[in-house]
Amino acid sequence: MHSISYLEEFTYQIFRTIGCSAEDAGTIAQILMAAEKRGISSHGLLRVKDYYQMWKKGRINIEPSVSTVRQTPGTAVVDGDGGFGMVAARKSMEVAIEKATTVGTGWVTTQNSNHFGIAGYYAMMALEHDMVGVAMTNANALVAPTYSKSRMLGTNPIAVAIPAGEHPPFVADFATTPIARGKLGIKGKQGLKVAEGLVQNKEGHPSRDPDIIKQGGAILPLGGDSEHASHKGYCLNAIVDIFSGVFSGANFGPFIPPQVPYLDPPQQQTGKGLGHFFGAMRIDAFQDKQTFKERMDQWIETFRQSESIEGQPPVKIPGDPEREMEYHTRQTGIELIEAVQNDLSQVAQELGVGFEKA
Amino acid sequence: MHSISYLEEFTYQIFRTIGCSAEDAGTIAQILMAAEKRGISSHGLLRVKDYYQMWKKGRINIEPSVSTVRQTPGTAVVDGDGGFGMVAARKSMEVAIEKATTVGTGWVTTQNSNHFGIAGYYAMMALEHDMVGVAMTNANALVAPTYSKSRMLGTNPIAVAIPAGEHPPFVADFATTPIARGKLGIKGKQGLKVAEGLVQNKEGHPSRDPDIIKQGGAILPLGGDSEHASHKGYCLNAIVDIFSGVFSGANFGPFIPPQVPYLDPPQQQTGKGLGHFFGAMRIDAFQDKQTFKERMDQWIETFRQSESIEGQPPVKIPGDPEREMEYHTRQTGIELIEAVQNDLSQVAQELGVGFEKA
Repeated sequence: MHSISYLEEFTYQIFRTIGCSAEDAGTIAQILMAAEKRGISSHGLLRVKDYYQMWKKGRINIEPSVSTVRQTPGTAVVDGDGGFGMVAARKSMEVAIEKATTVGTGWVTTQNSNHFGIAGYYAMMALEHDMVGVAMTNANALVAPTYSKSRMLGTNPIAVAIPAGEHPPFVADFATTPIARGKLGIKGKQGLKVAEGLVQNKEGHPSRDPDIIKQGGAILPLGGDSEHASHKGYCLNAIVDIFSGVFSGANFGPFIPPQVPYLDPPQQQTGKGLGHFFGAMRIDAFQDKQTFKERMDQWIETFRQSESIEGQPPVKIPGDPEREMEYHTRQTGIELIEAVQNDLSQVAQELGVGFEKA
Repeated sequence: MHSISYLEEFTYQIFRTIGCSAEDAGTIAQILMAAEKRGISSHGLLRVKDYYQMWKKGRINIEPSVSTVRQTPGTAVVDGDGGFGMVAARKSMEVAIEKATTVGTGWVTTQNSNHFGIAGYYAMMALEHDMVGVAMTNANALVAPTYSKSRMLGTNPIAVAIPAGEHPPFVADFATTPIARGKLGIKGKQGLKVAEGLVQNKEGHPSRDPDIIKQGGAILPLGGDSEHASHKGYCLNAIVDIFSGVFSGANFGPFIPPQVPYLDPPQQQTGKGLGHFFGAMRIDAFQDKQTFKERMDQWIETFRQSESIEGQPPVKIPGDPEREMEYHTRQTGIELIEAVQNDLSQVAQELGVGFEKA
């Protein structure tokens, strides 16, 4: 078990040592740690080695000049200058919040970026401003549209954070697929099969093999098969890809550069890097602040009181599991799996930074 | 088979006869017919009898004064004054488009409204302005959140329309459930079972009975069961409910008045009527118009060329099936099922309007 402060400081040192500014290294460390604290380890320190090796291969600009390249009073296009996704994304969300302050809402799309960690972090940035936050991103292609054999889309997440009054905020943060890449990997290592309706083989036929992705298979869109309306998951996933990629001038669909060092970017590029989409909406654009918060409290209470099925947990409000996990990890610290600790040791050694396994 | 013009004129006459203004009757007829033309008969003339009987019961204001009750440069709250949903919704989307013209995007939430027909109609209103359109609505509760026995949410659809260049636009319009109420009804009449993962019984246990809704059962959120990530469908459905209901000051979740005459509104009300949410985004807020359209064409071509699974249809672009249906019905006219024709005859007779079965 490591303390949160130890891991955050360590991560900061890694990114400082490769040459990031203090501000950027702080941003990256904070957002990777936000994932760890919230129990989303697939987007936490597991990524440090990949990020480091992407940088070693010259695929990350560690001194990016993030800038607004186009704007209206309520919108902007931000160029991430090929840097780490967190740096571009945080700046983009700040611009969205600024725009919302002036005209009610702000919507920002980001080009020339990279993997940005958990979408929920950016959506939640809006909360302290009494705004609703929205964040989405495209990602390298692992998902087959309905009827398709081929991987055309990423697991393209959507996050929406909505302030409440006395209750904690509503925070939804979900991939637009029924299963994430990381969870498939874990099932594979455990030698388990997955349910039907999550993945298909390279011919497009149903599969229960969690490792099928390594053999040319694909993840299915939310819904699963067409009998369960996978075309709706495909629609949703495609919307995230277009808002993030087409709007911004980034790559879209199958042209998105993979965010791991061992896969090269596709030869054909349709834009710059990968893309994100952010929104901020002032709650007092719609209702008096107090009224809005009271209404959200009432919504949350109503849904919490919904009677649950016998033998099932209580009905949750989006954000409950991650907040409960954060409460827990703040007290206990973070348990990193052995493989991640080994990766971190290796990176630390190469860079001459100290790392204690625990 | 009826001609489109005959049915549109007939529908117009029905709503004129009960006292709607020429403009409002035209709006309602046009939007109901848009559903028929696009093959979404569950949102077409099937609704005329319900609307008529809702009005007879005094639950619809046929002379609404639709007005903006709160606004910023980029947002507005519109009050539908208890009229037909189409009237409030079209006006709301017009306000969103107006706002987008000035500040890049416009976002409008609507309170005190009723059933608005197909969400796609409003999203598509943005296209001729070279804008992306977004429309969503909440609806009376039929859907159980993950782990819940109770119906807490509607089938809450989302529509997004995105202009392209040489290709037809991208138009996604989907309920956030794996199956719609109307399709369950049809399966029930045919004596068929449905797949698992679409509905549950009143205890919250899996069911394959399409009529289970009549016995206290519920529709599941997109995803189906929790193994297929129904919690993501629940998140999405809840976001539509909050954007439409909490933002606007309408009812939300289980408090939404049913849009059929034989079910009374819930005793407790948390706001006025039902709610919608609309958005318009100028494409040139993000890219030069021409560039945006070329990029969307490239997106569409890329996905159309995706290789399909043997024995399956070609990969579709959202909006393809409805557009193909519209092309077809414009040539052949509309085939109304017997039961709908009987309902229309009955309403016509009561109002002294002519209706020829065909």
